[in-house]
Amino acid sequence: MNKEHPAIKYHLDSHGKIETAVKSRLETPEDLALAYTPGVAEVCRTIASEPETADLLTNRGNTVAIVSDGTAILGLGNIGPAAGLPVMEGKAMIFKKMAGVDAVPLCIMADGVEDIVRFCKQIEPSFGGINLEDIAAPGCFEILKRLEQELSIPVFHDDQDGTAIVSTAALINATKVRGSEIGSLRVVINGSGAAGIAIARLLIAYGAGDIILVDSKGILCADRADLNASKREITGRTNPRNLSGDLAVALVGADVFIGVSKGNILTQESIRTMAERPIVFAMANPDPEILPDEAIAGGAFIVGTGRSDFPNQINNALVFPGLFRGLLDARAADPSRSMPKDMTAMKLAVAQALAGCVEPTRERILPSVMDPSVVPAIRAAVLAQK
Amino acid sequence: MNKEHPAIKYHLDSHGKIETAVKSRLETPEDLALAYTPGVAEVCRTIASEPETADLLTNRGNTVAIVSDGTAILGLGNIGPAAGLPVMEGKAMIFKKMAGVDAVPLCIMADGVEDIVRFCKQIEPSFGGINLEDIAAPGCFEILKRLEQELSIPVFHDDQDGTAIVSTAALINATKVRGSEIGSLRVVINGSGAAGIAIARLLIAYGAGDIILVDSKGILCADRADLNASKREITGRTNPRNLSGDLAVALVGADVFIGVSKGNILTQESIRTMAERPIVFAMANPDPEILPDEAIAGGAFIVGTGRSDFPNQINNALVFPGLFRGLLDARAADPSRSMPKDMTAMKLAVAQALAGCVEPTRERILPSVMDPSVVPAIRAAVLAQK
Repeated sequence: MNKEHPAIKYHLDSHGKIETAVKSRLETPEDLALAYTPGVAEVCRTIASEPETADLLTNRGNTVAIVSDGTAILGLGNIGPAAGLPVMEGKAMIFKKMAGVDAVPLCIMADGVEDIVRFCKQIEPSFGGINLEDIAAPGCFEILKRLEQELSIPVFHDDQDGTAIVSTAALINATKVRGSEIGSLRVVINGSGAAGIAIARLLIAYGAGDIILVDSKGILCADRADLNASKREITGRTNPRNLSGDLAVALVGADVFIGVSKGNILTQESIRTMAERPIVFAMANPDPEILPDEAIAGGAFIVGTGRSDFPNQINNALVFPGLFRGLLDARAADPSRSMPKDMTAMKLAVAQALAGCVEPTRERILPSVMDPSVVPAIRAAVLAQK
Repeated sequence: MNKEHPAIKYHLDSHGKIETAVKSRLETPEDLALAYTPGVAEVCRTIASEPETADLLTNRGNTVAIVSDGTAILGLGNIGPAAGLPVMEGKAMIFKKMAGVDAVPLCIMADGVEDIVRFCKQIEPSFGGINLEDIAAPGCFEILKRLEQELSIPVFHDDQDGTAIVSTAALINATKVRGSEIGSLRVVINGSGAAGIAIARLLIAYGAGDIILVDSKGILCADRADLNASKREITGRTNPRNLSGDLAVALVGADVFIGVSKGNILTQESIRTMAERPIVFAMANPDPEILPDEAIAGGAFIVGTGRSDFPNQINNALVFPGLFRGLLDARAADPSRSMPKDMTAMKLAVAQALAGCVEPTRERILPSVMDPSVVPAIRAAVLAQK
């Protein structure tokens, strides 16, 4: 352990980033008799006979589980559940700080899709929502689909939909600054896991017509025999010019590069092969596909990364606090409601609400994660859905 | 929902009793870059390569999961996981308030022993300890035994060991006030589930020689053909006079009644059949086996209940905060250590430490749950174990 590293020092100082707190009065034996036995029995009996009161009489309605099996932590890969805990604690602190949502990190030992689905179903009585996090593709697609069907609380896979929403918001504003129409852009997405596929899906819904997805083996195209079901499905809806080859082939003449892959795989030279004034979102964490200075030197017009220490942070942290604030508040208003009927419409509405939080410039296509106007704007967009 | 009931009102006012809180600094983009991406990556990598740092770099080492399947909630029975949440939140607030332990209620849908064991193994990467709670006998015995063997973090079933420790502490002081020796007492335990059997085991270890256990069918005796394995085992070590029949038979001449059964099953008349100056612990929750006034009218010398609104509260809440404080602190000092080798010795040491917190009188055989001297005393007893 490198105790001199500033992030290690930050974490060591407080032994982590979140804790529990007592929410109601507990000072006297009389308080204890209300909060605990004997008084609590009446509360238990009430929930047993009127299950919908659980969210009113406990903290459940404001509590989200952050569930990860540690198979796809940040850009670090399959480093296991314990090593993923600092990320989940980070998300939990952002949930609380920005949106008042109580989030509990649950980094679990799990063996594939069934195990994670079972786990989430087991914890449903204790939580008002589930935020799936850093679970590897393609399993994550089936997990989300199953849970959306089988749970009666909102479920959200941040690496899919959170990333898709924030990328779409960033692209809405970047095209505004560049003076382009989304339908006319050539977009390359490097990385075809949970994030890449979800971004492609949402950009198509938003009107993008020419998207090329690339994975570690090259461009996703019809004659690739090695694609899993999710990749095959999205390949049928992308790559209209039917290119094949590596990233370099895809980049030639592209207007937009969206990287959700790994660090340091993009060069100044390859950016020079793109269209004039290209948009570069190098979103790999912790190391972006290319550092902003280099991208600019290569001719990039607008550059964003996932990090908070460069301009234009394009990070799910802009989305998940307000999104769950909205989903939990919608459920509190109508307990029978778990998720909006048209999820794509909701995601686009959230992306537009997020984009609307700033008057965009090249160096400020999105608001700061710490900007207090973001959560209310996203919450309102969620609440406006049917 | 009866909104006029004071306990309902108490819970409705705050929508539950616990929440999360941000533990470290999160005010600026620089803080975010340490707590979240990119800085957090170094923290994840450190835990991946040095797993023992997880408890230093996250809140794991101070966090306990309160796991229940809702099959034996208070004295209310199998009312399900959601209805058990108010009890678990109550425990979580006591954990935090009294001992600074962060506890997370996990009321789960589970189908028996295997399901609960699997769940607890799944969550081990996120927690420094597991407090099993309100899980029905006999399954709870096997669950605890399995988890003690299969997990490397402390596991404790509060309804077994917490109840056994607090009952033993209460009996230590009650016999002191009465001037009796434990070895000479006739003890009747009504209720032969998790709590009753655990109390019998610990009292035997403490030196009790004449214990009779009673369940809903009567005295546990060798010729009962309907006993499960746990009841058979304890029957072989109790009932030395080989009595059979109902509770009334057991009570004749008994010095001590310990009730962990259900409310209102003991009468003044039955107390009159006990020995002179009997000790009555009517610990069923929320309604004790007999109300204190009636027990006194029947001749009881010392009366305790599980409730905080009568004198002599004999409740696990006196035990679990300090016990986990000690277990977590022991583990922080030596991460290879999960539980002391001799669990019985630890439980007796904790009972004696708890009894030592007061100079006992008839109306004060134990300290208040809110007494700040209790947690340090129990913690020290745990830390003194090898």
